[in-house]
Amino acid sequence: MTAHGIRGTFFDFVDDPWKHVGREADSARFLVDGLLVIEDGRIIDFGIYEETARRHPSLAITPIRDRLILPGFIDGHIHFPQTRVLGAFGEQLLPWLQRWVFPEELKYEDRDYARDAARRFFDNLLAAGTTTCQAFTTSAPVATEELFDEAGRRNMRLIAGLTGIDRLAPAEYMRSASSFYADSKRLIERYHRRGRNLYAITPRYALGATPELLDACRRLKQEHPDCWVNTHISEDTSEVSAVVEAHPGCADYLAIYEKYGLTGPKFTGGHGIWLSDDEFGRLARSGSAICFCPCSNLFLGSGLFRLGRATDPRSRVRLSWGTDVGAGNRFSLLGVLDEAYKVGMCNAGRLHDRPEEAERNKVSPYRGFWSVTLGGAEGLYVDDLVGNFEPGKEADFVVLDWKAGPSSLTWRQSLIAGEEGPTTVDQAADLLFGVMMVGDDRAVDETWIMGKRLYRKGGK
Amino acid sequence: MTAHGIRGTFFDFVDDPWKHVGREADSARFLVDGLLVIEDGRIIDFGIYEETARRHPSLAITPIRDRLILPGFIDGHIHFPQTRVLGAFGEQLLPWLQRWVFPEELKYEDRDYARDAARRFFDNLLAAGTTTCQAFTTSAPVATEELFDEAGRRNMRLIAGLTGIDRLAPAEYMRSASSFYADSKRLIERYHRRGRNLYAITPRYALGATPELLDACRRLKQEHPDCWVNTHISEDTSEVSAVVEAHPGCADYLAIYEKYGLTGPKFTGGHGIWLSDDEFGRLARSGSAICFCPCSNLFLGSGLFRLGRATDPRSRVRLSWGTDVGAGNRFSLLGVLDEAYKVGMCNAGRLHDRPEEAERNKVSPYRGFWSVTLGGAEGLYVDDLVGNFEPGKEADFVVLDWKAGPSSLTWRQSLIAGEEGPTTVDQAADLLFGVMMVGDDRAVDETWIMGKRLYRKGGK
Repeated sequence: MTAHGIRGTFFDFVDDPWKHVGREADSARFLVDGLLVIEDGRIIDFGIYEETARRHPSLAITPIRDRLILPGFIDGHIHFPQTRVLGAFGEQLLPWLQRWVFPEELKYEDRDYARDAARRFFDNLLAAGTTTCQAFTTSAPVATEELFDEAGRRNMRLIAGLTGIDRLAPAEYMRSASSFYADSKRLIERYHRRGRNLYAITPRYALGATPELLDACRRLKQEHPDCWVNTHISEDTSEVSAVVEAHPGCADYLAIYEKYGLTGPKFTGGHGIWLSDDEFGRLARSGSAICFCPCSNLFLGSGLFRLGRATDPRSRVRLSWGTDVGAGNRFSLLGVLDEAYKVGMCNAGRLHDRPEEAERNKVSPYRGFWSVTLGGAEGLYVDDLVGNFEPGKEADFVVLDWKAGPSSLTWRQSLIAGEEGPTTVDQAADLLFGVMMVGDDRAVDETWIMGKRLYRKGGK
Repeated sequence: MTAHGIRGTFFDFVDDPWKHVGREADSARFLVDGLLVIEDGRIIDFGIYEETARRHPSLAITPIRDRLILPGFIDGHIHFPQTRVLGAFGEQLLPWLQRWVFPEELKYEDRDYARDAARRFFDNLLAAGTTTCQAFTTSAPVATEELFDEAGRRNMRLIAGLTGIDRLAPAEYMRSASSFYADSKRLIERYHRRGRNLYAITPRYALGATPELLDACRRLKQEHPDCWVNTHISEDTSEVSAVVEAHPGCADYLAIYEKYGLTGPKFTGGHGIWLSDDEFGRLARSGSAICFCPCSNLFLGSGLFRLGRATDPRSRVRLSWGTDVGAGNRFSLLGVLDEAYKVGMCNAGRLHDRPEEAERNKVSPYRGFWSVTLGGAEGLYVDDLVGNFEPGKEADFVVLDWKAGPSSLTWRQSLIAGEEGPTTVDQAADLLFGVMMVGDDRAVDETWIMGKRLYRKGGK
């Protein structure tokens, strides 16, 4: 395939903005007039248009005007079979699972339902500008198969896996540890590293797992060390107190996953709201990641994730950020940034005695957009593949219209930049702050996967 | 003027859903096929289509299909001169005022700027389905005049007033107590009860007011007892500790407003996050109201309003709910309901030992939509005028498309009701929960003021 180019205004990251307190712009890269050169779905060159175009004579170029082009968003924690029950009323975590979630997830044993749902799931992701996600499925293999197959048809990067549970769920929803082991092995062989699919060994959460199930996960990880591990951790106070009773001998929630050899690189625990300082330290040292899901944490009333603690440079924990649909009520990571900012400000408001930790809670546009692009890729250990516009990476990107949203957005944005658009990195970041706090998914004008446009707003 | 009718599916309230725990639907009124009859902007009849139409032969009828028609939304607390600075990054209340708010509000001394802003302000309100608001202005009369004039041109119900501050603001922004008194008197005479305008004596907040300014407010309220009083209270911990120092002899924040005779019916204090149980009790007994502004409270990190305490039946406080633009980052009261639900769930999650208070924190669609319609009208003491479809009230209403929003909304709503729409009150309420938690202002299809359509989405 021959190369082609995208000419427009680009904004991506080359470093972690939490490392640049007071000069966060140093972590970003802003090209008012840039050129992205793509071949076979991969970025082969990127830079200022004038210079870059010279290196590629007779390149076919698609111009994208009056927009900001960012790396595609990365969702570190989403439940595929909750696509239809997002925003379900009235319960904290454990009763919410019983009342709303398990009954809906059971429907995914029907292959037609699961296939239709997979199409809707990816349609929603693309409309939200999300190009990579790490997804939970159900306890029966059908949903996992349909999800990977649909991702393959769209050529979208997906981390997912059969989601094991053998405690505290309706009998018809649970599977034995041995069948989870056998099904997982079969699915790993069928899907892992086929196309852009990556497999995650996925015990749903330790409270819903017997020691036998976690032992099956240990064996799977030992036999397939290249696989990811995805689960939940320390989401809700009721869950945290129950889980250490269910796993005697483990001093805290994280110790359970450590006991079964699941932590380390490529491990993600969703939420982590109630982690102790000691657990944060162990996560940092082992290279394990937490996925921060503020929409969900607020929606279920689970609590406020200690973002300023997790980003402490003395003990920095890798993070991805996630929607956690359906406990999260938005597919859009822009909605996640809105709520992340608010969680951070609520934390900051309670930390008058610890000004540095308070400051680390402030989700600036640099921190926010880094977290859902390059930072999320680092949290998921896919930053060799996606996350910014470095040559060699896959050409997944989103085209944002910073004026599209509620009617109040336009005049707000006109305070920052005129009709000609942003000319400095700080202007661009200020516009992006408007997009995340006043705007919403309407800002997503186009979503491109491996250099092909798969979504255009309004289908135009 | 001759009467005309609106035929469609109507949803409004006849009582407070917090009085009907476990059977909240008793507080609502749902007409699958209803008829609203309007004459001279007022409702003269309302009921089931078949019965009501018989009483009005040869009535001209506008049919509205596949939509839910609700009373217009009521915003109890919004800052007109912050229309352009909503969603401004990075500070808690007091530095946020200094850095972002006062400089923008100063621009409103320019009449052309204020007039343009007033047009944009009401455009944004109408696009959000808001038909009544109680607004802060600035310390110079220009903005107040332009706001009332524009409301008059649109025939929209507005409560507002010159916003006095004579402490802790840039010198050029402050006005003396005597000029505030004189200007307020002039504006009361010019605007109060002219058309649909209502005047609120508006000391910005006690921390920004000298005893002289509050004494001027007392005289104004004594001389114009029919006027409203609008201010802020107990928003932020730094503010609360500073305010009692600034007003020696007052035991708590509320005592300051009590001392100057400002509490009682038609008094609204915005926020009230840090009110003590004793203050809640005194507010309840005096008939004073608090305005709950969850978007703002989260955006500034001010804290979580104790909704379950305010709604305690033994000591019930009147409430309106507000956007508090620009500390609130959305003009839409649907956005307020999203965040109100989350604040309530976070409160509920911390009240395991007080299950009744925990339960009162759950913002069901009944509680939510009551609060932004009839409940808000009661909080603002305008429920004789607006808030539901009772004959005699003004015909302000909003037409909601429960499927319009992010792409994820449609399939979610199809779990509740098919193409034919809701046929029961609970189905309608479940759809409305989807609108508030998964949808947004896109649901607002039309907004009608005094029986005239002033907004239609997309200008179609």
